[in-house]
Amino acid sequence: MAKGMPAIGWAAKDTSGVLSPYSFSRRAQKDDDVTIKVLFCGICHTDLHIVKNEWGNALYPVVPGHEIVGVVTDVGPGVKNFKAGDTVGVGYFIDSCRSCVSCSSGHDNHCPTLVLTCSAVDYDGATTQGGFSDVLVVDKGYVVRVPEGLPLDGAAPLLCAGVTVYSPMMEFGLNAPGKHLGVVGLGGLGHMAVKFGKAFGMTVTVISSSPRKREEAVKRLGADAFLVSQDPEQMKAAAGTMDGIIDTVSAGHPIVPLLELLKPRGQLVVVGAPSTPLQLPAYAIIGGGKRVAGNLVGSVGSCQAMLDFAAKHGITADVEVVKMDYVNTAVERLERNDVRYRFVIDVAGSQLGAAA
Amino acid sequence: MAKGMPAIGWAAKDTSGVLSPYSFSRRAQKDDDVTIKVLFCGICHTDLHIVKNEWGNALYPVVPGHEIVGVVTDVGPGVKNFKAGDTVGVGYFIDSCRSCVSCSSGHDNHCPTLVLTCSAVDYDGATTQGGFSDVLVVDKGYVVRVPEGLPLDGAAPLLCAGVTVYSPMMEFGLNAPGKHLGVVGLGGLGHMAVKFGKAFGMTVTVISSSPRKREEAVKRLGADAFLVSQDPEQMKAAAGTMDGIIDTVSAGHPIVPLLELLKPRGQLVVVGAPSTPLQLPAYAIIGGGKRVAGNLVGSVGSCQAMLDFAAKHGITADVEVVKMDYVNTAVERLERNDVRYRFVIDVAGSQLGAAA
Repeated sequence: MAKGMPAIGWAAKDTSGVLSPYSFSRRAQKDDDVTIKVLFCGICHTDLHIVKNEWGNALYPVVPGHEIVGVVTDVGPGVKNFKAGDTVGVGYFIDSCRSCVSCSSGHDNHCPTLVLTCSAVDYDGATTQGGFSDVLVVDKGYVVRVPEGLPLDGAAPLLCAGVTVYSPMMEFGLNAPGKHLGVVGLGGLGHMAVKFGKAFGMTVTVISSSPRKREEAVKRLGADAFLVSQDPEQMKAAAGTMDGIIDTVSAGHPIVPLLELLKPRGQLVVVGAPSTPLQLPAYAIIGGGKRVAGNLVGSVGSCQAMLDFAAKHGITADVEVVKMDYVNTAVERLERNDVRYRFVIDVAGSQLGAAA
Repeated sequence: MAKGMPAIGWAAKDTSGVLSPYSFSRRAQKDDDVTIKVLFCGICHTDLHIVKNEWGNALYPVVPGHEIVGVVTDVGPGVKNFKAGDTVGVGYFIDSCRSCVSCSSGHDNHCPTLVLTCSAVDYDGATTQGGFSDVLVVDKGYVVRVPEGLPLDGAAPLLCAGVTVYSPMMEFGLNAPGKHLGVVGLGGLGHMAVKFGKAFGMTVTVISSSPRKREEAVKRLGADAFLVSQDPEQMKAAAGTMDGIIDTVSAGHPIVPLLELLKPRGQLVVVGAPSTPLQLPAYAIIGGGKRVAGNLVGSVGSCQAMLDFAAKHGITADVEVVKMDYVNTAVERLERNDVRYRFVIDVAGSQLGAAA
């Protein structure tokens, strides 16, 4: 096998989750591979869980990051759809089996042997390392094109936060003028759902436990209305009005009040992952024929469609761009939701430093 | 207002739930009404809850029964689609608002002001009384035609148990050859789901906590396979194989093992109503993009389509036909699931007796 490609990134070495410089190797570029110089990489909540091994599956050292925008520096001879100089993105996964029912039907994100972009085992046995690093080598089938005109820092979070809300909105018909969308939680995912909902021409209501988010929801993001979830009167007044709700909250929370906001046959989409089970009384979904669905990111195809839509409508994430040496502080601030709404690391503009 | 129509039925007079003869009045037939002599009426689990006021909304005296087959004896001048002598059915509801988004889109069963067939308040203020009685007066829009060839006793439970499983099977595409359907619980609803699934050409697996139901599931009802839900090995071997599951169990039970049986994007349909909330961990639906939906019976249109399909495929419920004076025993036996699979009262063949 050809010699690997040297890479440098920032990795967590243990469950402290503290990131520091780390030298490693990418695989040598294969026929169908695209080699990418990383420009920007978002910090997703998932990265927090992974670096501290909160899900019990961290493979240290862990280079996190799966909201990656970069520029192609080289391609293998089998790659016709990308060339050096192209601006591209890589999201939550970098490979899938390509043969299961999900892969065969354009839903590769639901492949049971999905290879995640970081802290996973690739089909060749290598541990995958994410976008907090200078270079990536990825199969052409798992790379998307970032359309011209999108600011690259604000585009990075589209690769995970963006597609995670866009994909189910498309899937469940929550993309049409005249429909009413609820968005629960106003963080990285929630603020993207508001933007897409408005771009689709929908009426968008933000539902939040904190009244202080009203102003940013309505004035900054353009939501049509704001509901304080703890206010029974407000919630009751809005009962039965929503076609769908994107629930981005990752802390435990009651969903019956959300189901009550839905019209009959309305759709609740769960994209946050509380650690305790959601309490779902049958009566809350039977009478109105209501639906609850989970969603994990989106397919590669959906991700490309989302980027094209975002470019057309000028949609990017609201970001705070930081250098790599700020990443540990950023992670701490993200843990207390102290960011509007996404940290993005200026990887190419950072001194990645010498390996420890 | 015209004088009412005298009726006699069996009613529960208090929370003992004991049924005894009861004389009352139906409304005088209006222009759009159909007057029906009741022939058969099934006993649904819901009737048990209502007669004992377990849901707290019984309006005593309660004449239960909403799986009604009868013959038209008279129609108002505005009725063109039915005439005296027609064999017809009436199900779980006898009116709806006809103007809400659900009614306007063919989903009248999700109307927020649905008028249930018994123990509900009709739009004219009268308490509705069900099919454990000699005569019904119902608006033509809430009556369905029972196609020729269907045995009328076995057809009665189609009006609730049948449509409750048929309707979501159609809605969620669980009606195609080659697809794999799971049916949880083998009672009134479950055995109908098996029959419809087989008639649709699907592979049908029954999932039950009691191994002793294997023989009846496979040999009597024609299921392709049987899983004991308490057997982790069996359940694991079937993981990820089902397109959809109809869950008819009305006792509390874990749904994560059921969700694990689903393929990615698979659909769990909840039609039983346990009194404790279902425990739904987000992880169980996020990774595979899985879906959970509730369902309440079906629209009038769906009920007619179901009856037409049932007639074409010779589908009826497996019933034990009893006379009205057996109803209290039947209710007791139903409470301990001692029936395969539905009691049906031969109302027209019963001595309904003198009112107490």
